[in-house]
Amino acid sequence: MINTLYLPELREMLNENDGAELREFCTAIHPARTAEFMEGLTAGESWQVMRHAPPWLRGQIFAFLDEEKQLEILESQDRSEIADLVGDLAADDRVDLLDDIDEEIVEELLPLMPTEERREFLRLRSYPEGSAGAVMTTEAAKLDENLTVEAALQELSRQAMELETIYYLFIVDDTDHLRGLVSARQLVSAIAKPDVKLSDLMETDLVTADVMEDQEDVARKVAKYDLLAIPVVDHEHRMLGIITHDDVIDVMREEAREDAHRIAAVEPFEASYSKTPLLLLSWKRGIWLTVLFLFALLTAAALRHYDEQLARWGWLAWFLPLVISSGGNTGSQTATLIITAMALGDVKPSDWLRVVFKELGTGLVLGGFLATIGFAAAAMMATSVRDAMVIPFTLLLVVLCGTFSGAVLPLVFRRLGLDPALMSSPFVAGIIDIVGIVIYINVAMVVLSRV
Amino acid sequence: MINTLYLPELREMLNENDGAELREFCTAIHPARTAEFMEGLTAGESWQVMRHAPPWLRGQIFAFLDEEKQLEILESQDRSEIADLVGDLAADDRVDLLDDIDEEIVEELLPLMPTEERREFLRLRSYPEGSAGAVMTTEAAKLDENLTVEAALQELSRQAMELETIYYLFIVDDTDHLRGLVSARQLVSAIAKPDVKLSDLMETDLVTADVMEDQEDVARKVAKYDLLAIPVVDHEHRMLGIITHDDVIDVMREEAREDAHRIAAVEPFEASYSKTPLLLLSWKRGIWLTVLFLFALLTAAALRHYDEQLARWGWLAWFLPLVISSGGNTGSQTATLIITAMALGDVKPSDWLRVVFKELGTGLVLGGFLATIGFAAAAMMATSVRDAMVIPFTLLLVVLCGTFSGAVLPLVFRRLGLDPALMSSPFVAGIIDIVGIVIYINVAMVVLSRV
Repeated sequence: MINTLYLPELREMLNENDGAELREFCTAIHPARTAEFMEGLTAGESWQVMRHAPPWLRGQIFAFLDEEKQLEILESQDRSEIADLVGDLAADDRVDLLDDIDEEIVEELLPLMPTEERREFLRLRSYPEGSAGAVMTTEAAKLDENLTVEAALQELSRQAMELETIYYLFIVDDTDHLRGLVSARQLVSAIAKPDVKLSDLMETDLVTADVMEDQEDVARKVAKYDLLAIPVVDHEHRMLGIITHDDVIDVMREEAREDAHRIAAVEPFEASYSKTPLLLLSWKRGIWLTVLFLFALLTAAALRHYDEQLARWGWLAWFLPLVISSGGNTGSQTATLIITAMALGDVKPSDWLRVVFKELGTGLVLGGFLATIGFAAAAMMATSVRDAMVIPFTLLLVVLCGTFSGAVLPLVFRRLGLDPALMSSPFVAGIIDIVGIVIYINVAMVVLSRV
Repeated sequence: MINTLYLPELREMLNENDGAELREFCTAIHPARTAEFMEGLTAGESWQVMRHAPPWLRGQIFAFLDEEKQLEILESQDRSEIADLVGDLAADDRVDLLDDIDEEIVEELLPLMPTEERREFLRLRSYPEGSAGAVMTTEAAKLDENLTVEAALQELSRQAMELETIYYLFIVDDTDHLRGLVSARQLVSAIAKPDVKLSDLMETDLVTADVMEDQEDVARKVAKYDLLAIPVVDHEHRMLGIITHDDVIDVMREEAREDAHRIAAVEPFEASYSKTPLLLLSWKRGIWLTVLFLFALLTAAALRHYDEQLARWGWLAWFLPLVISSGGNTGSQTATLIITAMALGDVKPSDWLRVVFKELGTGLVLGGFLATIGFAAAAMMATSVRDAMVIPFTLLLVVLCGTFSGAVLPLVFRRLGLDPALMSSPFVAGIIDIVGIVIYINVAMVVLSRV
């Protein structure tokens, strides 16, 4: 749904080249809204509008455009104006964007960018994707511990508009080693004591992120300690940058989406669903579907192996989907519960014994209940009540097998250092399909042969 | 995993009743760490330690304890001390906690709490769970638009330690109507112009949350506009409170977990996995498992209906799990993709036509590919290559049916105002199981009868 509220007015202002009105449009409202109202404009038109915003605001509006339009503007507009725009972006956004455009254009833009921003870009780009270094920004308030409250306020006032956040002041020594932190809250509280030094206010027990740390772990820390921003340090505790709360929210949304996709056996992809082309989407799904399909071929082989039993007791085939879906459903339930509990830090691989017992207990309750309904249904459909006994025994065993593998497989994957979400629900279900068939036919042979 | 690093020292300090050391332990480190180091202590011991912290910090440490211990402390310790503690908690945390303890104890605590906190508690408690009102806190910096920058800084300095955040100053009129917002960043930038009035600095185009708005929608707004906090207003635009970034992160984590559970057909539950008792867990899973089981019983009925065909072409049963799992897996993939895309605002019900075409296209690609492998496998196992043709035709149709229902069902649920995540993967898979069987046997009748 594209916001078309101001489209006609915007187009008219553009046609009449009405500078005053366009400037008013860019400055009067929140940059995210300015960007939203321009959704219906082409990249070129949007850029014509944004050129009327003051440079510092231009970067902010640009940051709220959708990525496709951002890339089109970067690739199509005047190089020197674009270099200025890129220079005004937050350091982390700059790296994300330039990573996605044509390398040749980046090479043309780099010499046009201010030296400091260029160096920063080259440094940030060197961190691997998904690491703290790749999401951090370098625009943090760094101050000397010998500053007084008054001097710090003035220094901050000077820099306030350029920094990503002024709400945490990081105290560093001459060589950028992180010594402590003073929150703007503490600083403001101390206004009445202007001569107090920052070293007397600062907290020294800090939560930090290592520059190579996984972004998901960093997000968890920020959430746990309710931080506004987390400082990123190297192995010598030198401060390299910060990751702010809004980036943490983005990381968490992205990771939640990826986990959900993995759980449904879809290989994660970068762009949104609606912007990912059909063939790429088919590939991301096809890889896992094929693996699952090959698994399922084993069920065909297993059933062929039991051909004699299936021919003898034809009604067994009726309950085949029921048996395997019961196992599969309980298995995916358990797998999802354990995967999300591990993602939130609630369950750890060392808890495996407790988890397995709990799941076997749950399996007994659920399996017992399904076995009862299953028996009633089978008794009505099968040739005799005695024959129908195959179904409840099978269901109980298959459900137990589902809760057991749903619990153990993600734990094992985590223990092996793999993403437990790889042990996706369809995967667990696929394994149980085969095991379920083997259980089913063997129970049938035991029960029915005695008749 | 419980942090046992300081346990022996803590126990020793407690035994010796070493006030100075215990106070040092409570004040020297981040309250979240203090809470973490006390994980191995009982509720009573933890409270003995925390009593040595100054009251304002006591509330903060308490807020980081795990919920079980919090509740035990509230229920077991001296009522008047607890009333003070509860008075010091953030207003939103207070409501969450008192909601979970014995109503009788709440009645005893209420008269002991300061009047203002008591009234606030009673007011906040009246908002329905999941609404903005229920997560907001009332401790925001509210200022008059006629204040100067200097006066505002002083006012803020006075209140800084009591407010949940001082980083946004909300400008309200005499009757609390929200007029505008000045960020602490703007205020600090204007330090050099101390006589400027807030009305000249404030932004008036504000993003707000309605007090009855769903917490998930509010979280999405905060994420979209990169806010530190969002003001919560009533229908007359009177400011009632704020929701801060850390609460937004908690809401998002909680919602992501609930969505993942719904997708796996587990009814959401409040406590963590490891703290939810086995029987409650079985109930939350059993409800949906039973629904799915009744669905699966329909597959048994369908297969019984086709008993003649199954007896005539016995090998059809071999490929039954393969056929239905292929449909189920593509169906869950699509359902998850559409549900997560809707949760992120990428896909809306009005996009249904585009989504359906994309999914039918993907279904053709994936179905075509699986049909090819399936044909090869069936040709080796079935009685003749001509018989084997049943499998590829069925697979193509079933996969198309999977992508189609996976796309349409969540969209329809959303359109009906229901949670699309209710159209869980096992549910979609269950529907496809039945449709898949009907397709399979009918394709078989067409292909095989012509032989």
